[in-house]
Amino acid sequence: MSDFVIPVSEMAKRTVNPIRQIVDQMEIKPHPDKPMIALSIGDPTVFGNMKVDASVKEAIKSAVDELKSNGYPPSIGYEHARQAVAEKYTEPEYGVNISSGDVIIASACSGAIDLAIAALLNPGQNVLVPRPGFSLYQTLAESQASEVKHYDLIPEKGWEIDLKHLESLIDDKTAAIIVTNPSNPCGSVFSKEHIRDVISVASKHKLPIIADEIYADMTFKDVPYISFASQSKDVPILSCGGIAKRYLVPGWRLGWVIIHDRNNRLGEVRQGLVALSQRLLGANSIVQAALPNILHKTPQSFYDETMGQLEENVNVLMERLSKVDGLKPIKPSGAMYLMVGVEMTKFPEFKDDFELVQRMITEQSVFCLPGRCFTYPGYFRIVVSPPKDRLIEACDRIEEFCKQHRK
Amino acid sequence: MSDFVIPVSEMAKRTVNPIRQIVDQMEIKPHPDKPMIALSIGDPTVFGNMKVDASVKEAIKSAVDELKSNGYPPSIGYEHARQAVAEKYTEPEYGVNISSGDVIIASACSGAIDLAIAALLNPGQNVLVPRPGFSLYQTLAESQASEVKHYDLIPEKGWEIDLKHLESLIDDKTAAIIVTNPSNPCGSVFSKEHIRDVISVASKHKLPIIADEIYADMTFKDVPYISFASQSKDVPILSCGGIAKRYLVPGWRLGWVIIHDRNNRLGEVRQGLVALSQRLLGANSIVQAALPNILHKTPQSFYDETMGQLEENVNVLMERLSKVDGLKPIKPSGAMYLMVGVEMTKFPEFKDDFELVQRMITEQSVFCLPGRCFTYPGYFRIVVSPPKDRLIEACDRIEEFCKQHRK
Ligand SMILES: Cc1ncc(COP(=O)(O)O)c(C=O)c1O
Ligand SMILES: Cc1ncc(COP(=O)(O)O)c(C=O)c1O
Repeated sequence: MSDFVIPVSEMAKRTVNPIRQIVDQMEIKPHPDKPMIALSIGDPTVFGNMKVDASVKEAIKSAVDELKSNGYPPSIGYEHARQAVAEKYTEPEYGVNISSGDVIIASACSGAIDLAIAALLNPGQNVLVPRPGFSLYQTLAESQASEVKHYDLIPEKGWEIDLKHLESLIDDKTAAIIVTNPSNPCGSVFSKEHIRDVISVASKHKLPIIADEIYADMTFKDVPYISFASQSKDVPILSCGGIAKRYLVPGWRLGWVIIHDRNNRLGEVRQGLVALSQRLLGANSIVQAALPNILHKTPQSFYDETMGQLEENVNVLMERLSKVDGLKPIKPSGAMYLMVGVEMTKFPEFKDDFELVQRMITEQSVFCLPGRCFTYPGYFRIVVSPPKDRLIEACDRIEEFCKQHRK
Repeated sequence: MSDFVIPVSEMAKRTVNPIRQIVDQMEIKPHPDKPMIALSIGDPTVFGNMKVDASVKEAIKSAVDELKSNGYPPSIGYEHARQAVAEKYTEPEYGVNISSGDVIIASACSGAIDLAIAALLNPGQNVLVPRPGFSLYQTLAESQASEVKHYDLIPEKGWEIDLKHLESLIDDKTAAIIVTNPSNPCGSVFSKEHIRDVISVASKHKLPIIADEIYADMTFKDVPYISFASQSKDVPILSCGGIAKRYLVPGWRLGWVIIHDRNNRLGEVRQGLVALSQRLLGANSIVQAALPNILHKTPQSFYDETMGQLEENVNVLMERLSKVDGLKPIKPSGAMYLMVGVEMTKFPEFKDDFELVQRMITEQSVFCLPGRCFTYPGYFRIVVSPPKDRLIEACDRIEEFCKQHRK
């Protein structure tokens, strides 16, 4: 009897979510006298302060009422949904003319990244990913027996890519470069010049870029958002995006790949992406049906308010945390995150960022993710979307915590 | 310049949807004087005669209004959604006691099947699948470099599995058996005895069963629906289901895997399924939030009407088509399909079912899928969900077509 145990597949064994693994090791027991303030999850809906725009709710409800969008969409998505994405991200001033044929609707930005990785990488090949960076790239690549190599971002230069390091990692197994702009976990936003420099490296080595642009347009006042596609002449860009963050609906699971390929360098990759989209069919049909309204009818005031609130929160956090001896918050320019460096020598009590973060939970009930979650020890990440008063309270507690433990 | 062409991955090349491939080869030009009647797509929403229940629409709309379900659900799904599935498919009379911990919410039944295949099969291993059968199994297995082996169903025995043939295919590379009950494309429903016989084969060879039960409970009057789990003592059953067909919302992309494992034979497969669910996060959060209402508050009248309409349609089709010399419709007992055998010798003009179906489009504007789409030449499949008058019109035309071409 005991020999009747079903073995699990190698793929399942290889599939690891590092954040989950790290967080599962933590003892997340807040201090009994202090209500928990979770600044850990990149989900702007958690605290209820950031709400979906009324127009978006209405778009969904009328799609439900109309009864026209309950059937199977094409595997690449409804034509009008793809059209809406194409219109939104066309940039004629840069010669970026996208049509619906260049868009594949996917199951959220995660699904879009999965399509891009699956279409470009074979087992044994590698993809270059940022450090600090979003761990999903590694999960997806390793799941399919491909590898990641981490290139460094430079905190002193607003988290620009260390181009020398990037280039030094490229070998004959490298199949693509992933960039995240604006960045999770850094909240940084690349300049036009820097984007060009990155593209030059890709061009020199004839590599495509997977641009994770889920935070596209989520930049603070006076910080322009520049898309990778707008700066690329010959390097193909697979731009992965979605509505999760900008429209405050991560649970809705709608994203897309936009194929930018001015010089037809993608060859069979295009059909490859389409073939892969047929494995599962992507996003919910109702959300697809509402997408044109979501992308094009959401009032400007919604965007302004969301970004205004995030920027205000960042300003408060920067002001407070930069005054704390031992902490080095790095000012973000967009997205919804803030990386805080820790001078660990001032806190000799803690072995590493993991232990420090852990103790901040048990003593102060403030939950940030340790830098380790982003392959970047010596830092912790704060999600800046919670209500301002919660963030101020968190700053009070972090300050107290640092005072108590600083040597 | 010309050497800068990005190669596509092996996985993308291996990912093939046979139905799409076959249909893409067809010239789907209907006769100009006759409006097309498409009996080809397994989507009950196409003609607008079958409508989502009002209660289901309301469940979605209130989930949208409540603003509580826009965030990231856990990767395995909301607890209350999993709970609702567990309650629905618990069968205490058979000792099947499912809890929410046995349920993983997935991106539709396709996503559930993908999870099950990915958790059980390595590259080079094989899974046994029915012939005629649903082509997605092959697409998913081959996509991950696993193989399928087709076991025969026997039309004369109401499409029961040829057990000898099934068993003869098992080798040391076989990792699982997939069964589809009720069946697409046959509309057949297995008896309790037959299910037990199938399970015996699996038990003897210590193989798990992936039971595609997306058409669970969709049986006609006096035909009981028996789940595979209810009949298994020791064989682990991964039951894949979803709301696509029964609730007439295939575009909503919500499904599930129910893990039935009375004797803990699945070992690490359970965690493997959970790990795999973290790759992409499954189904839309709003539909997940509405799932308890969908599964438990939909009025019985809705189910009765849907199944009544399908059965009525089947009766009409059977009556008409069984009188056509040269055709052999096989009576279904559930789901929403009907397989029609063709005595090809009576139609010597056509090389095969593909050519016959093709000509039925160009001459009569009736579009059925050729048996080839289900690895089963000599048949064509009719989707029985369209409005009755459309089906009658289709029968008229098929009859005329056969009369014209019969030798
Ligand atoms: C950089 C980045 N890319 C992709 C995603 C995933 O987005 P989605 O929820 O649309 O799958 C996230 C989510 O946190 C992210 O931070
Ligand atoms: C037997 C069978 N399994 C699974 C599916 C896929 O279901 P879903 O739309 O939930 O992915 C279908 C759809 O036609 C089917 O016929």
